[in-house]
Amino acid sequence: MEKRVRQALMDIVGEENFTDALIDLVSFSSDASKFQHRPDGAVWPQNTDQVASIMKLATEYGLPVTPRGAGTSLTGTAVPQRGGIVLDMSRMNKILKIAIEDRLVIVQPGVVFDDLQKALDPYGFFFPPDPASGKVSTLGGNVGTNAGGLKGAKYGVTKDYVLGLEVVMADGSILRTGSKCMKSVSGYDFTRLFVGSEGTLGVITEITLKINPKPLSIQTCTAWFEEIKQAGMAVSEIMRSGIIPSALEFVDGNCLKAVNQATDLDLPEVGAMLFVETDGYTKEETNYQMAKAIECIKRHNGKNITKATSPEEAEKLWTARKAAYGVLARLNNTIIVEDVTVPISTIPDILTKIQDISDRHNVLIPTLGHLGDGNFHPCIVYDGTDADETARVEQAIGEIFKVAIEMDGTLTGEHGIGLDKAIFMPLEHDEIAMKLMSRLKTLFDPNNILNPGKMGLEV
Amino acid sequence: MEKRVRQALMDIVGEENFTDALIDLVSFSSDASKFQHRPDGAVWPQNTDQVASIMKLATEYGLPVTPRGAGTSLTGTAVPQRGGIVLDMSRMNKILKIAIEDRLVIVQPGVVFDDLQKALDPYGFFFPPDPASGKVSTLGGNVGTNAGGLKGAKYGVTKDYVLGLEVVMADGSILRTGSKCMKSVSGYDFTRLFVGSEGTLGVITEITLKINPKPLSIQTCTAWFEEIKQAGMAVSEIMRSGIIPSALEFVDGNCLKAVNQATDLDLPEVGAMLFVETDGYTKEETNYQMAKAIECIKRHNGKNITKATSPEEAEKLWTARKAAYGVLARLNNTIIVEDVTVPISTIPDILTKIQDISDRHNVLIPTLGHLGDGNFHPCIVYDGTDADETARVEQAIGEIFKVAIEMDGTLTGEHGIGLDKAIFMPLEHDEIAMKLMSRLKTLFDPNNILNPGKMGLEV
Repeated sequence: MEKRVRQALMDIVGEENFTDALIDLVSFSSDASKFQHRPDGAVWPQNTDQVASIMKLATEYGLPVTPRGAGTSLTGTAVPQRGGIVLDMSRMNKILKIAIEDRLVIVQPGVVFDDLQKALDPYGFFFPPDPASGKVSTLGGNVGTNAGGLKGAKYGVTKDYVLGLEVVMADGSILRTGSKCMKSVSGYDFTRLFVGSEGTLGVITEITLKINPKPLSIQTCTAWFEEIKQAGMAVSEIMRSGIIPSALEFVDGNCLKAVNQATDLDLPEVGAMLFVETDGYTKEETNYQMAKAIECIKRHNGKNITKATSPEEAEKLWTARKAAYGVLARLNNTIIVEDVTVPISTIPDILTKIQDISDRHNVLIPTLGHLGDGNFHPCIVYDGTDADETARVEQAIGEIFKVAIEMDGTLTGEHGIGLDKAIFMPLEHDEIAMKLMSRLKTLFDPNNILNPGKMGLEV
Repeated sequence: MEKRVRQALMDIVGEENFTDALIDLVSFSSDASKFQHRPDGAVWPQNTDQVASIMKLATEYGLPVTPRGAGTSLTGTAVPQRGGIVLDMSRMNKILKIAIEDRLVIVQPGVVFDDLQKALDPYGFFFPPDPASGKVSTLGGNVGTNAGGLKGAKYGVTKDYVLGLEVVMADGSILRTGSKCMKSVSGYDFTRLFVGSEGTLGVITEITLKINPKPLSIQTCTAWFEEIKQAGMAVSEIMRSGIIPSALEFVDGNCLKAVNQATDLDLPEVGAMLFVETDGYTKEETNYQMAKAIECIKRHNGKNITKATSPEEAEKLWTARKAAYGVLARLNNTIIVEDVTVPISTIPDILTKIQDISDRHNVLIPTLGHLGDGNFHPCIVYDGTDADETARVEQAIGEIFKVAIEMDGTLTGEHGIGLDKAIFMPLEHDEIAMKLMSRLKTLFDPNNILNPGKMGLEV
C-alpha cells in the first residue's frame, strides 16, 4: 500500500484502527466461502464521517473498498477480490435507538444479530429474520445480503423489515433513504435497492428496522419420511392448506447419517426428517395450525410424528436440524453450501433431481433447508485436495443451478451471489437485465471501487 | 398528433384500440386529483409486444407516454402532464395464473383489485393489500403507486407482495425482474424499484404476486373518544401492547358530523371514533388480541365500546368509516385527500397540530385513516371557486407537510407523489437524494418520455 494512502487512512481512523500487518491481512482475505484474496490494508471505522473520508480517499486513488461484517458470507461477498481496503464495520456496533412505541430500532451495521434480539427481548418484541449465522453475523451483513432464515415462510426476510438506511456513496457523499414510518411511497425505493446489493452500491452506516411483537405460543413437531419426495409433497400440501407455519424445515437421509455419526441422537436413517413450528398468541391458534400440518404429513406417510410438550423438548427436537451444518462440515475437508430456491410445488421434483445429480457424479450432497419458502441448501461435502472429485463437484453444482432455473427457481434465496455464483448470473438473468444491473452499478459507483468483481456485474 | 404517428399507433394496436376523439381525450386528461392535462392520443394495448412497439415509436418521436389503470390516482399520477400518448392498460386484464400450490398469482396490469380477490376466494386465499379504491383500481396502478390500505399495519402494502414483474422499458426492450420464488437475492432488486415509481421508469405489463391464506376468525369493535388526542394515545398504546390488529382505523369529529348530515346513522359527534379489527385462525386468537386492544382503549377513556357479534354487525360498525369519503366529497365542490404518515408515537401530537392548522387558516380538514401504521388522510374540503379560501387551503397543506416532516414523517404513505406533492419532495429528501433520483430516472428513461413531470424529478 502506498505510503501516503497508508498515512491518510491512519489520519482518518487513528493508528489503532488501521492495519496492514500480514496476520490481519491474511484473516481479512477470506470469509466462510472457499474464496481468498488478500487486501492491502484494513480499517475499523468508528463513525459515518470516517467512512465518508475513506470513500473520498478511495475515489481519489481508485482503491477498491470491501465492506465487511462478521465475514460469515458463504459466497465470497466479503472477500477483497481486487485487494485494496477492507472496511471492517464491526466496531460500529451501537444500538442507537429502541423505539417500541414506533415499532422500530435504529442500529449501526456492526451490531450482531443476536445482540439486537437480546436487547428487544425485555420488551416482548423481536426482529423476525433469523439467519443461521445470527449468533455472529452483523445486521450490516444481513442487510447487504438480504439474509433470510428459518422463519422466512411466515415472516419474510431482512428486506421486509428495513425501513431506512444511511449509506456512504462511492464519492463519500452521505445518502439517507426511507423513513422512520411504517409506510412511505415518497420517491424511488433506494432502501430496497441497497438491501442485497452486497456492498457494491454503497457502504451502509445506519439501519432503521421494523420490529414485531413476539408470539406467545409456539408448537414444535417432527416427522420421518421413508422417501425425501414424500416430505416434499407434505410441505407442498401444508403450504396449500390455509396455514403458514413459522418454520418448516427438513434434513435429508445423508444429514441424518452424518448427525448419527457425530452425536448420540440415534436418529432413524430414513429419507428425510421434517420439522414444523407454528406460532401465535394462544394455544388454540398453534394447535389449529399444527393439526392442519399433521393432517398433511399423515397423508404423505409421515411416520413417528412427535410433538414437543415443553420448550426443552422442542429444543431437543430441533437438535438434529441445528447440529446438521457443523456435523456435515466435519465429514470432509471442504464443504460448499448452496441455496437454490424454487416455486414451492416443485420441491419434491427438485429434491429427487438433486439426489440423481449426486448419484451420477458420485458426489455426497446432503441437503437441508427451509422448505416453507422453497429455499434449501444442498451441502456439497468433498475432498478439496482431490482434483478429480473437485471437478465432479463443479459439474454437479452447475447442474443443480441449471435444474433450479429450469423449474423457475433462483440461484440464491438468502446467501447472495458474491463470487460463488457470479458466473451463473446469465443463467437466471437475460442480457437486458444483466446490462441494466451493470449500468446501475456504474451510476452508483462510476470507478468500480465498491466491492468490485462481485455479482457478475462486469459484463 | 402527427399523421404518421397516429397511423403508426393504429397499425400497432388496431384502429379500434386507438383514439384521438375529443371526448376521449377529455376523459383521459384527469384522474381523481385536481390536475388536468389533455393528451394528444390514447391507446388500449392488448399485449406486451404492442406496448414494446409503442415505446419504440415514442422513443423515435420523443413522445411522452403516460400509463393509466383506472385513473383513481389522488395525486395526478395518471394525468398526461406533457401531452403525448395515454397508455390505457385496462384491456390487459387477464389473470394469467393462480398457483395456490406456489402461493402466487400472475396477472396483467389491468386486472381490477377486487376481481383478483373474487378469483382467490374459492381457494381460501387473498391478496392482503386492500386499497380503498379496490373496487375499481387496477393491480398495475396498485403496483405503480405501491398502494396500501386498511390492513397495512399487520399485512404491509403492495410492495411486500410483488415477487416479480415484466416491464417494457423506454426504448421498447422487455425487462423481467424477480422470480416465482418466495425468496431471491439474485442481483439488484429491480422489482422493488418499479413498485411505487408511478410509471416513470417503465411500463408494467405482467405482475407476479405473493398471496396469503385467509384468516378464519375476525373480530370488530368500535369506540368513541371525547378528544381526538385520546384516540391517538390509545392507538399508540395498542401498537406497543404486543399485538398487531388487522385494522386500526379512525374518523375524527368532522367526519362524524358529515356522516350524520348525510346518513341516519346518528353517530355521537365526539372527538373521534376508533375501529379495531383482529384476525386469526381461531376465536381464542382474535379474542385475546381484541381484549388487549380494549384494555388500551379503556385506559384512554374510550367510551361506548361496541363489539360486533356477527359479520352483519361488523359491516354495520364499519359503515361510518366506509361512508366517510363519499360523504366528505359532497360537503363542498372540492376535496383534497392527503396522506401524510408519521412514526406511530407522534400520532396524538400531529392530530392536534392538524386541528390547530385547520383553526388558524379557517379551513375544514376532516381527518381519517389507518392509525396502526401512522398513515392518515387529512381531507381538505373547500370551495375551489373561492380564490381566498383556495389560498388558505394551499397554506394549510404546506403546513401539514412541514409538521409531518418535522416529526420524522413522510409526504405520502400510499397515494404517491405525482404532481400534487412534487414541489414538496425537497422538504423530505435532501439534494443528494433528489439528484440520485433524477440520475436514476435518466438511466431508465434517457429521453424523459415515461410519465414526465411527475415526482419532482426534474431538479
